[in-house]
Amino acid sequence: MELEGVEIEDTFAEAFPIKVARALITAVNERWAMEVAREATGFGTSVIGCPSEAGIDKLLTAEETPDGRPGVAIMICHFKKDGLKEQLIGRLGQCVFTAATTAIFNGLEAEEKLPVKLHFFGDGYEYEKAVGGRKVWAIPIMGGEFICEEEYGVKSGVAGGNFFIFAKEQMCALTAAENAVAAIQHVEGAITPFTAGVVSSGSKVGSKKYKFMHATTNERFCPTLRDKVEGSAIPEGVHAVYEVVIDGVSEEAVKKAMRAGIKAAVKVPGLVKISAGNFEGKLGKYQFRLKEVLGL
Amino acid sequence: MELEGVEIEDTFAEAFPIKVARALITAVNERWAMEVAREATGFGTSVIGCPSEAGIDKLLTAEETPDGRPGVAIMICHFKKDGLKEQLIGRLGQCVFTAATTAIFNGLEAEEKLPVKLHFFGDGYEYEKAVGGRKVWAIPIMGGEFICEEEYGVKSGVAGGNFFIFAKEQMCALTAAENAVAAIQHVEGAITPFTAGVVSSGSKVGSKKYKFMHATTNERFCPTLRDKVEGSAIPEGVHAVYEVVIDGVSEEAVKKAMRAGIKAAVKVPGLVKISAGNFEGKLGKYQFRLKEVLGL
Amino acid sequence: MELEGVEIEDTFAEAFPIKVARALITAVNERWAMEVAREATGFGTSVIGCPSEAGIDKLLTAEETPDGRPGVAIMICHFKKDGLKEQLIGRLGQCVFTAATTAIFNGLEAEEKLPVKLHFFGDGYEYEKAVGGRKVWAIPIMGGEFICEEEYGVKSGVAGGNFFIFAKEQMCALTAAENAVAAIQHVEGAITPFTAGVVSSGSKVGSKKYKFMHATTNERFCPTLRDKVEGSAIPEGVHAVYEVVIDGVSEEAVKKAMRAGIKAAVKVPGLVKISAGNFEGKLGKYQFRLKEVLGL
Amino acid sequence: MELEGVEIEDTFAEAFPIKVARALITAVNERWAMEVAREATGFGTSVIGCPSEAGIDKLLTAEETPDGRPGVAIMICHFKKDGLKEQLIGRLGQCVFTAATTAIFNGLEAEEKLPVKLHFFGDGYEYEKAVGGRKVWAIPIMGGEFICEEEYGVKSGVAGGNFFIFAKEQMCALTAAENAVAAIQHVEGAITPFTAGVVSSGSKVGSKKYKFMHATTNERFCPTLRDKVEGSAIPEGVHAVYEVVIDGVSEEAVKKAMRAGIKAAVKVPGLVKISAGNFEGKLGKYQFRLKEVLGL
Repeated sequence: MELEGVEIEDTFAEAFPIKVARALITAVNERWAMEVAREATGFGTSVIGCPSEAGIDKLLTAEETPDGRPGVAIMICHFKKDGLKEQLIGRLGQCVFTAATTAIFNGLEAEEKLPVKLHFFGDGYEYEKAVGGRKVWAIPIMGGEFICEEEYGVKSGVAGGNFFIFAKEQMCALTAAENAVAAIQHVEGAITPFTAGVVSSGSKVGSKKYKFMHATTNERFCPTLRDKVEGSAIPEGVHAVYEVVIDGVSEEAVKKAMRAGIKAAVKVPGLVKISAGNFEGKLGKYQFRLKEVLGL
Repeated sequence: MELEGVEIEDTFAEAFPIKVARALITAVNERWAMEVAREATGFGTSVIGCPSEAGIDKLLTAEETPDGRPGVAIMICHFKKDGLKEQLIGRLGQCVFTAATTAIFNGLEAEEKLPVKLHFFGDGYEYEKAVGGRKVWAIPIMGGEFICEEEYGVKSGVAGGNFFIFAKEQMCALTAAENAVAAIQHVEGAITPFTAGVVSSGSKVGSKKYKFMHATTNERFCPTLRDKVEGSAIPEGVHAVYEVVIDGVSEEAVKKAMRAGIKAAVKVPGLVKISAGNFEGKLGKYQFRLKEVLGL
Repeated sequence: MELEGVEIEDTFAEAFPIKVARALITAVNERWAMEVAREATGFGTSVIGCPSEAGIDKLLTAEETPDGRPGVAIMICHFKKDGLKEQLIGRLGQCVFTAATTAIFNGLEAEEKLPVKLHFFGDGYEYEKAVGGRKVWAIPIMGGEFICEEEYGVKSGVAGGNFFIFAKEQMCALTAAENAVAAIQHVEGAITPFTAGVVSSGSKVGSKKYKFMHATTNERFCPTLRDKVEGSAIPEGVHAVYEVVIDGVSEEAVKKAMRAGIKAAVKVPGLVKISAGNFEGKLGKYQFRLKEVLGL
Repeated sequence: MELEGVEIEDTFAEAFPIKVARALITAVNERWAMEVAREATGFGTSVIGCPSEAGIDKLLTAEETPDGRPGVAIMICHFKKDGLKEQLIGRLGQCVFTAATTAIFNGLEAEEKLPVKLHFFGDGYEYEKAVGGRKVWAIPIMGGEFICEEEYGVKSGVAGGNFFIFAKEQMCALTAAENAVAAIQHVEGAITPFTAGVVSSGSKVGSKKYKFMHATTNERFCPTLRDKVEGSAIPEGVHAVYEVVIDGVSEEAVKKAMRAGIKAAVKVPGLVKISAGNFEGKLGKYQFRLKEVLGL
């Protein structure tokens, strides 16, 4: 298969269930909303070594926010509901509540809700009011008043949607990955939790040499090892591979994000192949076949 | 006292010892170095509710980095050495190692060092080489090779340097705080760990109403409560207060940062007063008197 | 009248006919499209002293551009068709054609078209092809191939739509003006040609003191002269006024832009009043009454 | 010759005398100083088709500006002194004077000075004062007061310093060129006037096919024509070439800029060769031999 002259491998991405929450952060301007969203979703690339996965879903215009100010939607993901609750309290409480000019609202309609009780900080000076038809708390602080909802919808979403970009040179793969991530920013309900959305290091389970390691570099996907290992997956002329990993509120959101990302990536000169990562269908609940995702 | 027409209160900031590490992140360009630095230092405003305090120290030109590429120095702070070690492994391993085009080097000369052993990920394909006179590991990954040092200096630094900006209107306080933080970005060895460097919510110890709360809003510093509480610290005509909190590798670094920050802040029209926060000298090991800091 | 607690003066903006062209610039990523758009529309605040008025209309997603790449729509405005043609040739030829990874397409459907014949630069090596259903030239250059349409629609548009922001302090007026400009960026067919969209210096026709000057400061609108001149238009407590000037492809576009801008501005704390500038209806063909624009 | 494994052609850049002025723009923050600098230097890539060449020289910290605020130094270049004077008046008067929170100061010590008499706009309300030891005018405007010097040093500088980046793929050449331009931003007294500093279209004098054209594409430097023209200068495996053009206040500044730019460029993976453009020494007064520039 091909898309804009780039080979599309006939394979699939394999993904997993994860608990997802989503918050709308507003601020006096888009710049501040973004600063806050970045701090609140930082140190959140992978649940393997970070307290949670987290990322910026999308920019919100004034028309899309409860208080009519510029905003950013963020998503926080954790395998367990309790862990997610703790992360919501930590990230919203420490990185948004303390930040200049911000307000926070629930960004996910769901039957189940997690409490984030910030109003006690008001020590009795807080009060309830309505903003954009929502019941919120107004908490007096140094900067003025902080506005927040206290219940956040939680849903079962999808973690680990992905695709791989094989390119002739590192800068081609990088620009393609950047463009893919930029395109995914427009897809509602999907984040790319890794740093700037791009993963540079692929892993295999376990280790051949260091028995104490649970995961080590996947030598078959290392361009510099192409001629040194057996069964290299690196085609001739490929000098870099990047992966884009996607978490979404639903299968549909992940699918849309994969499609938008791949379509943006293949526009960049120097691409060789798009592929996807799976465990042969043995581990994950969800499968996203590139053929279907792209309608090829 | 006055500086550029703005009242400087004759008081002091009270600060505490903390363990500090510092890493130099380089990348193919400044933009990527910054993206990585933001992810690696996110969710790091305060040890009260974040896994550590963390922030961007300063941009590094190609001349200032071991590999001659653009870079960013970051700092990570934790009260305990073990906690700091764990945070280094988590933040560098998950947010920098996995990121596109990056390398990491130690950024703090110190007798004591913490190990961050990433090379095992190479599963035997890794090898040692020298970069900029430093012994590093080169680890084959999908994007090419990842370069890193494995020992990071740790020192006793200073947490909680601070100053307060009182302004007529919220936007005056905000711009002044932004400018202060931008100026502190040029001071080596100092970070402003809160979101974009600015704190909007001041707290007092304990609560008058909610006995289960360890800290609640400091009503004396809330402009909207000025006429509702006794002993308000808000001068007439002040509608917003922001705090800039500083962590540094040394007392000298914190002092320089406070000076640079305050000097930048007072240039902004609409400021009323600069002050600082302390516990009457009862809790912290370090005191930074504004008079001395500013040479007034 | 009031909007979100800010006084809206019952007055109108007076505007003029101007010839408008619009180009779609695409590039390998949004960052480059923006860089190019900025260069191509620079030195373009006012036809009084610049070769033309020019500005960025809006960002375009890949779905909105002929070649499926990220893009930016720009507008160029001149009182005369010949002047506009010359400016198109100069700005597109020198700032877009020479720039990395770019393509240019016509961005305005109109009966009348202006030729911008860049293909002769190809010296016979150029060739025609179709991109997104449009007939374009492909011109071999050092960076690869440059793609362009050669006919640009020209229409009679509207110049000088405007509103004024009166605020307590300069930073309030500035943030409000910034937010207004950011909101107008989402309105298709409208630009804010002044530097970052904001005008800091209002003028009156002629001079009281310097007879050789055609325009001088409008002292009635200078906050620092409030107590020194008769008939000051500056309300008590106002320390800064900024104007946002709008050019549009149509009356409707200007009206939408004024509405979006004012609605964004009044969200900022510290605003006192929104007004608009006119010549008592004596000079301009178009009038935009704030009452109608805002539906008050 | 080689630098970091990249071939350096043993050739030279040929450059020309030009008149240069330099202005220091300050603003309430770096962001506004940059916005203003961009507008004031836009539509300024080449004197061939733009009213002048213009660009951003470097960011200035508060310590480096007369008024202790953040700033940006810009340069404006024109072959004739009269043309330069007109451009200074137009660009500073229309793009800086009208802009929010700005001040302008002379940025070039020189015996000869050009007048930019903005103070008449004050209509008698303006007054003189001293800022940072300089005599300036304070002009009341809507936003507050505009501060400016009125005499700008003019010198004979150097236009057309340059180097060429040959790369395997377009994205390699682009990233290398971006990094070169970023490095040159740190060199005082040098600008890269083209869009974002990068030139995508090289030209030859005259035309083979269109006799009315003074310059057309240099087919020998077009990668897509490599196999179609005789004497192609494109090495095998090269798919993109970008040029960085430099104007400087002196030969030394241009030399430093070329060195900084090339050293930054060769760090990017996928580069093949660095060269430079000349007219065999027949046209330009200045020659910059790569060997000497780089100390090879």
